[in-house]
Amino acid sequence: MAEAGVVRCAMVMAGGAGTRFWPASRVARPKQLLPLASGRSLLAATMDRLTRAVGAQRTLVVTSAHLEEQVRAELAAWPETAVLSEPVGRNTAPCVGLACVWLQESGVSDDAVLGVFPSDHWIGDDEAFAESVELAYEAAARGGIVTIGIRPTAPETGYGYLRHGPVVQGVAPVLAFLEKPAAPRALELLAGGDVLWNSGMFVFRIGVMLAEIRAHMPHLSEALEAMRPIIRAGLPEPEFRRVYAPLEAQSIDYGVMEHASEVCVVPGSFPWSDVGHWDALPLVAESDHLGNVVQGLVVAEDCRGSVVVNESQRVIAALGLEDMVVVDTGDALLVMPRSRAQEVRRVVERVRELDETLV
Amino acid sequence: MAEAGVVRCAMVMAGGAGTRFWPASRVARPKQLLPLASGRSLLAATMDRLTRAVGAQRTLVVTSAHLEEQVRAELAAWPETAVLSEPVGRNTAPCVGLACVWLQESGVSDDAVLGVFPSDHWIGDDEAFAESVELAYEAAARGGIVTIGIRPTAPETGYGYLRHGPVVQGVAPVLAFLEKPAAPRALELLAGGDVLWNSGMFVFRIGVMLAEIRAHMPHLSEALEAMRPIIRAGLPEPEFRRVYAPLEAQSIDYGVMEHASEVCVVPGSFPWSDVGHWDALPLVAESDHLGNVVQGLVVAEDCRGSVVVNESQRVIAALGLEDMVVVDTGDALLVMPRSRAQEVRRVVERVRELDETLV
Repeated sequence: MAEAGVVRCAMVMAGGAGTRFWPASRVARPKQLLPLASGRSLLAATMDRLTRAVGAQRTLVVTSAHLEEQVRAELAAWPETAVLSEPVGRNTAPCVGLACVWLQESGVSDDAVLGVFPSDHWIGDDEAFAESVELAYEAAARGGIVTIGIRPTAPETGYGYLRHGPVVQGVAPVLAFLEKPAAPRALELLAGGDVLWNSGMFVFRIGVMLAEIRAHMPHLSEALEAMRPIIRAGLPEPEFRRVYAPLEAQSIDYGVMEHASEVCVVPGSFPWSDVGHWDALPLVAESDHLGNVVQGLVVAEDCRGSVVVNESQRVIAALGLEDMVVVDTGDALLVMPRSRAQEVRRVVERVRELDETLV
Repeated sequence: MAEAGVVRCAMVMAGGAGTRFWPASRVARPKQLLPLASGRSLLAATMDRLTRAVGAQRTLVVTSAHLEEQVRAELAAWPETAVLSEPVGRNTAPCVGLACVWLQESGVSDDAVLGVFPSDHWIGDDEAFAESVELAYEAAARGGIVTIGIRPTAPETGYGYLRHGPVVQGVAPVLAFLEKPAAPRALELLAGGDVLWNSGMFVFRIGVMLAEIRAHMPHLSEALEAMRPIIRAGLPEPEFRRVYAPLEAQSIDYGVMEHASEVCVVPGSFPWSDVGHWDALPLVAESDHLGNVVQGLVVAEDCRGSVVVNESQRVIAALGLEDMVVVDTGDALLVMPRSRAQEVRRVVERVRELDETLV
């Protein structure tokens, strides 16, 4: 079904900065750059997976200026990859638009198909992933915006959902984008059987996306046009910032996809997680036969289902832990039950008040 | 009832070395010297309590040679207190015998009453304690060995028990010493109603104890006689060690009290704990309204009944902990549920294999 001659591009979003993996993650060392994936960064794992699944002629990684050096170091194995650094983060809509005009300015046509992928997710079956990606690129070449959805395996409250229509040849129309639901609503959604998790991966023709931005985010569209000479000049920082910084921070889902004329979804059946917090680490990292992820100098005795990560030089003795998280970075220590991992922000804010350099 | 002219002596046993409070306790810094009692050492708290309860004419602290300097520093507020350092630990029987002959050699008569007290216990009601101590000294002045027992408040498996006969004027005959019981046995004992916890505190006339040692531990008795000239010479280390080191390590309970002709007990009604492990810390140290003992640089969010002790300079963030223990000494960290505190030895042994200096 692949249309001959269609240029494929891939864009990886690696600008995120969060503290949900605090104290291992910091503003200056966000999740995608941590060696969470059995010693590799999630960014490197993403690049590796995309190289095999997409085989893009052009690959672009968009990050933040303060992460650029670390990102380039991670990308040493992919020397053809272009790296763009946003002077400030403005959520996903400006970032996607920037990638489109940058690719056009570098000679890619409106008909080229671009897939956008987060840099910090986990995927448990690369082959099934590649099949879904193939379907999505093929569908996008025919028109519309094609998202990749994930068949839900639990009533997750931490993910957005998509409601979809009938699946025809692996693709279904998207009927609605649904916000992160409360627990009872998540159960209802699952029972309905016609929803998917929104994975944040989507594929489109560059011309299609720019037209949708023009229609639904006219200010962004104007700014993107103003970016063209700046891109041609090599993105000098002051000019880049002057146009980019005033942009409204907006997600591509909310700004474009919810209003776009034709959005469809490829229901993916591969195991997937956004690795949103420490509780998800056992998905990504190697664990022992009792379900513990133990890294660094740790004496673990009779522990189960626990995450004990020691980046310090001193010893951690863990006795009888069940479903706990212990993370030691030498300058800070976090201890909590895995079930509280989504609330780590509560302590991070209090630590920030004590000492900003620890966050 | 106090008999006029009876000399009262007190002896505090401060030679113990344990790792049940690891990593805070080390061979070189045992429990009695830790600032567990709201910033004070248990030894200092014991001295303070005895000063008020006993008012002894002579007070003696027996410790180990390698702890002597720290013990003397703790005793700065009690300058009249004599400190004896055993060259090696040989359990309580040699230690008690040594105290008896040392006191005799310093001019105390056989009729003087000596009370022996552990240095590392917690007592929750100093007034009730003083009443029991008073009863015990009075009873001991009349003869026999008088222990102080504690009315059990739970079927504890970590304590030895005493079975006793009818209580007359606050004193009862001891019928049997019972080993630490298994849980079902502990329940039976409690139901019987005629048992007390063995607190390790006991009072006797010096002549009575030495006679019992002569009768039941003749080798120890001979060694104690051989110690007299060494004591008079100021306990020079090589001679002290030459006589003391070959002694059998034996507890006073097993070696003497279980065989002694007349042993009775004062049932104490004061709250008491041997502070045997981290789980007992909330008894001793200040806790917040949610039952947490938090010491040092700690951000605790929504924690209950937990012990978080930070002796390091870095921050500990604790989120959602329930009945957990987190102890950070800068060179080692222990994390466990409070319910596992009695098993800390399991990790300590493994840490010792890694690095002996950490134990």
